[in-house]
Amino acid sequence: VTSRSLRAELARIVGEDGLRDRRDSRWGEDASAAHGVRGAPDAVVAPARAEQVAEVVAYCYRRGLAVIPRGGGTGYAGGCVPIDGGVVLALERLAAVRSLEPERWRMCVEAGATTGQVRRLARENGLLFAPDPGAAEQSQIGGNIATNAGGPHAFKYGSTGRWVTGLEVVLAPGELVRVGGPVRKDVAGYDLRSLLVGSEGTLGVITAAWLRLEPAPEAELPVLAFYPDTESGARAILDVLAAGVPAAALEFLDAGALAAGGGSLPDGAPPGAGFLVVAEADGSVGEAARVRDELVEALGAGALAMRAPADRAGARALWRWRDGVSLAVSAQRGGKLSEDVAVPVERLADAVIGTVQIGARHGLEACSWGHAGDGNVHATLMLDPADADQRRRAEAAAADLLGMAVSLGGTISGEHGLGAIKRGQLRRQWSEAAVAAHRSIKRALDPKGLLNPGKKEP
Amino acid sequence: VTSRSLRAELARIVGEDGLRDRRDSRWGEDASAAHGVRGAPDAVVAPARAEQVAEVVAYCYRRGLAVIPRGGGTGYAGGCVPIDGGVVLALERLAAVRSLEPERWRMCVEAGATTGQVRRLARENGLLFAPDPGAAEQSQIGGNIATNAGGPHAFKYGSTGRWVTGLEVVLAPGELVRVGGPVRKDVAGYDLRSLLVGSEGTLGVITAAWLRLEPAPEAELPVLAFYPDTESGARAILDVLAAGVPAAALEFLDAGALAAGGGSLPDGAPPGAGFLVVAEADGSVGEAARVRDELVEALGAGALAMRAPADRAGARALWRWRDGVSLAVSAQRGGKLSEDVAVPVERLADAVIGTVQIGARHGLEACSWGHAGDGNVHATLMLDPADADQRRRAEAAAADLLGMAVSLGGTISGEHGLGAIKRGQLRRQWSEAAVAAHRSIKRALDPKGLLNPGKKEP
Repeated sequence: VTSRSLRAELARIVGEDGLRDRRDSRWGEDASAAHGVRGAPDAVVAPARAEQVAEVVAYCYRRGLAVIPRGGGTGYAGGCVPIDGGVVLALERLAAVRSLEPERWRMCVEAGATTGQVRRLARENGLLFAPDPGAAEQSQIGGNIATNAGGPHAFKYGSTGRWVTGLEVVLAPGELVRVGGPVRKDVAGYDLRSLLVGSEGTLGVITAAWLRLEPAPEAELPVLAFYPDTESGARAILDVLAAGVPAAALEFLDAGALAAGGGSLPDGAPPGAGFLVVAEADGSVGEAARVRDELVEALGAGALAMRAPADRAGARALWRWRDGVSLAVSAQRGGKLSEDVAVPVERLADAVIGTVQIGARHGLEACSWGHAGDGNVHATLMLDPADADQRRRAEAAAADLLGMAVSLGGTISGEHGLGAIKRGQLRRQWSEAAVAAHRSIKRALDPKGLLNPGKKEP
Repeated sequence: VTSRSLRAELARIVGEDGLRDRRDSRWGEDASAAHGVRGAPDAVVAPARAEQVAEVVAYCYRRGLAVIPRGGGTGYAGGCVPIDGGVVLALERLAAVRSLEPERWRMCVEAGATTGQVRRLARENGLLFAPDPGAAEQSQIGGNIATNAGGPHAFKYGSTGRWVTGLEVVLAPGELVRVGGPVRKDVAGYDLRSLLVGSEGTLGVITAAWLRLEPAPEAELPVLAFYPDTESGARAILDVLAAGVPAAALEFLDAGALAAGGGSLPDGAPPGAGFLVVAEADGSVGEAARVRDELVEALGAGALAMRAPADRAGARALWRWRDGVSLAVSAQRGGKLSEDVAVPVERLADAVIGTVQIGARHGLEACSWGHAGDGNVHATLMLDPADADQRRRAEAAAADLLGMAVSLGGTISGEHGLGAIKRGQLRRQWSEAAVAAHRSIKRALDPKGLLNPGKKEP
């Protein structure tokens, strides 16, 4: 089909309102631009109803056209980039809150609602939707489900999938189906819901989700603890676990991340600090205070200094700052290449130190930060994006980072997914038989290979 | 193959020690005997190592023999019954604790360890493995994972699957693979772990699991509230949710279940009681007391009477009593046929009242109890198992119970699975396209259809 006739046929499904300008460069990239992943879609549609999503998928499936679902475009793995063309299916107009039932601890939202909006709606009703990925104001709930996005509070509350009780999804060759719903427990069928969570649009297109909520904690009390080096800081994380402290979040910044971000930290970092732990206690006022005291005790042993925001505004400012660490690191050289490995928590120090060593081996400054309690390390190579040689070296170093994660008993992706960037890398950590099972599921649900092709394990 | 040569060939894999007497009637049934589901295996093996499980599956796959994995045999759906013969693969000897790392909140156990053992090991180390299905001392962790078993505390803590970070599993045609492990977050591959959880042995045989643990609550404070009828009791459940009380468990017994079990309830039931709510608060001593007070307030409005055990021994006695409700109901007529539906929580009263009405329509006394907060209703028909007519009427009534659950927006199974008894019933609640996807996954992972055939959605 020519581009013009493709537009006309898609317009018949989604209306002229639902067509987008495919030449707009934003449709060809996401937050993974540093990796050089880019594409050019044959068409971009933004359906307004789930039935239109099904019709678009059916049309593409008949014509042999690739379908690339797109949420907020905040992914770090190129998961929504149309690397070989095809039809980009933007969910931004499918953003209604279908139901909000705070008195029953649940809501049903369409895929294009932002995660920030979902969190706020819950909060305004005394409830918590816990997943808090970095770009909650831009990222959409459908994309967060499709990648099983994590965040700082995943330590206590789990990643996005734990909060999903049902999905409405378009399966190949264009069927709108529902698995699960408002019911909190359901073991009748295979857990297709969980299979779709984290499948990065390669098994189906999520159009809506039923979300489970919980009563919101009354208080959230962060604690900062600074350590001289990675060893002492990582030891403190293990001390928190060994003491059985039910922290809500257990974050870290290594020396390099702290150097990049410390300047904007409220009150700065004390001299000699080479590792920062940001922990949080939450719960009722009394419970949060109790857990905070336990955190202070467990984190105190090797700490250079400890600090706590004085009030709620201070806590919010701290988490805003934490959200900005990634940008602060980018600002060092103008760009960065960041991996998203996770290791068993007792290997955290090895992963953090190993990241710096791998960078050095490739002539690049490296640092890391992330979700220490989950062993989830954003292992990052700092680079000048205009320097092709640095970019090449960073790609080689990134491969070493993945190898390191697996050799430490970990995973090549804790929360970002494989997307285009790490596609085909699953065999680093799964046996051939397990990868074969993965492939057979892809074939079973997408026999023509048209759902987000070239992503995950193509 | 003749039975004798089959034994000889299996003995070569598992040793003479690993053979069991196939004529022992226990291998042909499970806790679903009231449904009349029974089978006769061609052979029974109890491998001692995971590699032997893989070899048995490989042997059966080559020979076209069915493989029926078996845990503790406590299932209510006939999931481990060899309905058409085949090789029963008992996991009882594969029961080692491979690792226990309390200071890192995790353990790795083989499939045959009992769930009670897992829970005790966690507790002895100050940690919680929350899933608490009814028959924890007999049921095995592998079976609980294969059915995604629930229990009273699933309201706060989720079903078994939420606690599993990795699985070792034998996939067709006999490959021992591992998905996940001790890492707490991993989105590299499709979530095969969750797909296997609840798959009832139809996609693979679980041989070991990595379990996530949490710091154990210091205190557990149950509260009992008696109501005159189902409407007022179900209203109280909704009041607890509307008040945002983070209860650990929210159980119920209707009038019939209370009549059956009330006699053995510590201190009995007050006159006029037609519905009992058993709620529990947990957490630190202070937090549990705070939540208990909130429960008392939220449950108090329409209650006839409220009560709380005086101490830990009283609380334990209460939960032991709760565990015995199923047996007490059975004792009324000598037998029962129990369904395991779940509905949105606001339809709880409809489901409870509907259960009694459906029983009456078929000339049977009916009652229910279960996990009210999750809308999970053990809808039960009381019968004399020697009376064939009653059994027939109960089967007809059971079909109506499933229809009722779906018409209330619920599921035909909240925590027991479909097994042999509800096989092929998934289409009651899933569309044809969703069932087709389910079937295609089964075909992808078990192309010969030899893994627990005739179960779930055959």
